[in-house]
Amino acid sequence: MTDVGIDAIEIHAGKLKLDLPGTFAPAKGEDPEKYTKGLGLHASSLPDVYEDIVTMGANAARKLMDRKGLEPADIGRIDVATESAFDNSKPVSTYIAGCLEQVYEGDFRHANKGERKFACVAGTQAIDDAYNWIRAGRNRGRAALVVATDTALYARGDAGEATQGAGAVAMLIDEDPSLVSLSTEQGYGSMDETDFLKPNQQFPSVDGKRSVQVYLARMREALTDYESVATDTHPDDFVMVPFHTPFPGMVRKAALLGYRHMIRDTEIEEALADEIGRQPRPEAFEDDESYLDAIAEYTDKLKGTDRYREWYARSIDPTLELARHVGNWYTGSVHVARASGLKHALENDLDITGKQLLVASYGSGAQAEVHSETVQPDWEEEIAGLDIDDQLAARRDITFEEYETVHDVHNHDEETDVDPFTSPEAEFVFDGWGRMGERQYRYVE
Amino acid sequence: MTDVGIDAIEIHAGKLKLDLPGTFAPAKGEDPEKYTKGLGLHASSLPDVYEDIVTMGANAARKLMDRKGLEPADIGRIDVATESAFDNSKPVSTYIAGCLEQVYEGDFRHANKGERKFACVAGTQAIDDAYNWIRAGRNRGRAALVVATDTALYARGDAGEATQGAGAVAMLIDEDPSLVSLSTEQGYGSMDETDFLKPNQQFPSVDGKRSVQVYLARMREALTDYESVATDTHPDDFVMVPFHTPFPGMVRKAALLGYRHMIRDTEIEEALADEIGRQPRPEAFEDDESYLDAIAEYTDKLKGTDRYREWYARSIDPTLELARHVGNWYTGSVHVARASGLKHALENDLDITGKQLLVASYGSGAQAEVHSETVQPDWEEEIAGLDIDDQLAARRDITFEEYETVHDVHNHDEETDVDPFTSPEAEFVFDGWGRMGERQYRYVE
Repeated sequence: MTDVGIDAIEIHAGKLKLDLPGTFAPAKGEDPEKYTKGLGLHASSLPDVYEDIVTMGANAARKLMDRKGLEPADIGRIDVATESAFDNSKPVSTYIAGCLEQVYEGDFRHANKGERKFACVAGTQAIDDAYNWIRAGRNRGRAALVVATDTALYARGDAGEATQGAGAVAMLIDEDPSLVSLSTEQGYGSMDETDFLKPNQQFPSVDGKRSVQVYLARMREALTDYESVATDTHPDDFVMVPFHTPFPGMVRKAALLGYRHMIRDTEIEEALADEIGRQPRPEAFEDDESYLDAIAEYTDKLKGTDRYREWYARSIDPTLELARHVGNWYTGSVHVARASGLKHALENDLDITGKQLLVASYGSGAQAEVHSETVQPDWEEEIAGLDIDDQLAARRDITFEEYETVHDVHNHDEETDVDPFTSPEAEFVFDGWGRMGERQYRYVE
Repeated sequence: MTDVGIDAIEIHAGKLKLDLPGTFAPAKGEDPEKYTKGLGLHASSLPDVYEDIVTMGANAARKLMDRKGLEPADIGRIDVATESAFDNSKPVSTYIAGCLEQVYEGDFRHANKGERKFACVAGTQAIDDAYNWIRAGRNRGRAALVVATDTALYARGDAGEATQGAGAVAMLIDEDPSLVSLSTEQGYGSMDETDFLKPNQQFPSVDGKRSVQVYLARMREALTDYESVATDTHPDDFVMVPFHTPFPGMVRKAALLGYRHMIRDTEIEEALADEIGRQPRPEAFEDDESYLDAIAEYTDKLKGTDRYREWYARSIDPTLELARHVGNWYTGSVHVARASGLKHALENDLDITGKQLLVASYGSGAQAEVHSETVQPDWEEEIAGLDIDDQLAARRDITFEEYETVHDVHNHDEETDVDPFTSPEAEFVFDGWGRMGERQYRYVE
């Protein structure tokens, strides 16, 4: 069976930077370490006045098409994943196609366009739809363009404000992919939850504590579901484990529980037994409470072992490097984590061709998905093409007052007239509203 | 290759009825024939106070699961298509799963849930995703539940007000389907259009004239794209042609153009030549304008031929029977058209097993999709299970003042406190808002 997976990836970050320890913490009268150590975040990327989910997505897609030498006729499907849509009927993919058609000669007239919504997990769902479309033999030799794009803003003063971010990830899904192939096997953990939602509102209502619990519960279910169709997982099976990253601190919690699950009944549990004992099993306890106390104690000890710390440093920490400097991009987040890990491998000359990734996606509401990916021989060339470091270095560092202005600009309920903070160049920009309330775009040379 | 397609279908109509010639026309001071003859519509189905996209979708899904003897564990995927979502992050499928879990013992913990948006074409896109998922070998023997659900309301006084409707269609997508199998081949016509959209608003902005043009243009492109991968189409190939039906008058236009396209260079064009001449070909004309005049004249004559009228009466008119009494259901519309046609075949003892349908879906913004379906041997039993006639007969016929009240109830910007017009029985109902603004539901015995 021919491999199907991600052939190429491009990342487009919002062009403004909000420094969390340097700007946000002082303005809020908070300890900077609340952000850098607690959440694990240093900065948020935010969209300039002329940026939005369409421009960021179209700019990422254009870069991808140019680098891969693609024309519109090579694309049979454009799927956008977002939870920041500004239209209840017309999908963002049509706007992005319209942008791209301004700069390419051909058009996407026979490409299936769509939009998926399920909080942050929809980007992975869109990749799966594209994978299935190719496997079903319906692609006619064409590839799918998947764009995960979000402006992840919270109401000002909300506890989530420090985890904001904005950016887009464009991915090409194709046969014989250059970057990673995807497993047929998938695991799901999915229940109707009220942890984070946006009922007829732009900014989310969040139950922060519940959200953390639900992330961990659904992720555990997805992992065991994956194991039921693939095989039991073991930490050594995977060179890296990219997680959905609302903030790196969340992944620290999830990674520890995942590791604990994976080492149960393995030689690692055995090797650690002298140091921290074996994992408590529920059947050895009289009630849930005493089991939970015992497992919490074991987990705490596990976290301090060299073996766990080495695994975390090798398999998890590299996937968080970009997130620390851009914040949460919702649907793009897990795809930024994958790119971050692969970029780390390139920069550190790691030989990971043929190695496996375990990819753990999550969306509030709530659903986790787990699958594995195999790193392909041309991965280094693909990752070397990323210019995200240059983008991050070129961001305009904004003051807190400027941040408030930018937040208002992107608030659908505010009317603003603000000059941009940066000058667009060779990119798509928002160009005002049309007569039917539609957002309009143009390409700036 | 095993067939994949629609195994079962259930339809749930909003429980209120607005009589267009009898109630709406007099209140607007209009000629009733504007609706019955112009648009081809007699009534709209509208949701009672306790109904919405979740209750209608869950009620249709429950009926389907009960009739087919399914438990939650039999379902690997729940996809909802809608352009009436009330949450920008949490998908409607999670709410519907939550409803169903109130009445079944099991849960949908390992089912992939999602939501698709592309105006009215998303229902067909969701079926395609499910088809591809099965073909990709990822379903683990489970079926997919696809729910197309919408409350298709316009601002009061809008030209679209007479085409309103509300209802849900639930479909089970599975291997060896009992109703229809789907073709691998699909045709798409898709361009970035500003014909109908909802920019940060519940009710649509519509350019009615443009919308009609775009429907016809994209449909033609989708048909020729389908022919390029399948085979040239001929009117005799298809026992019926269900179209997306914003109102039956729209389908009258599209069917005529489709027939004209299909008979070109066939024995039908030849047989009609004595009566109305042959179809004008662009190369025979000096300019576009004279060609367009000639083709318009030919089309007008074609419409009056017995041959065309017989084809229309046999292949199109039966698909419009339900739409005339329920209005536009957006994502559900083309699936209501298919069900309407099959119901007509059952009631008229037509032997259509093994026969083909050509299914023509459309969403503003804009995209058309064309594929073919093969009627399966058990189709009669499936269609005999529909209780839509009973539902329509049981609707409460509302006055114009009651209609205005109901419209306000379902307007997200209005706060209302209105008693229901009907009594719920053995169904899911909306039960008020929770602390995070989420909509809540319960089952009424």
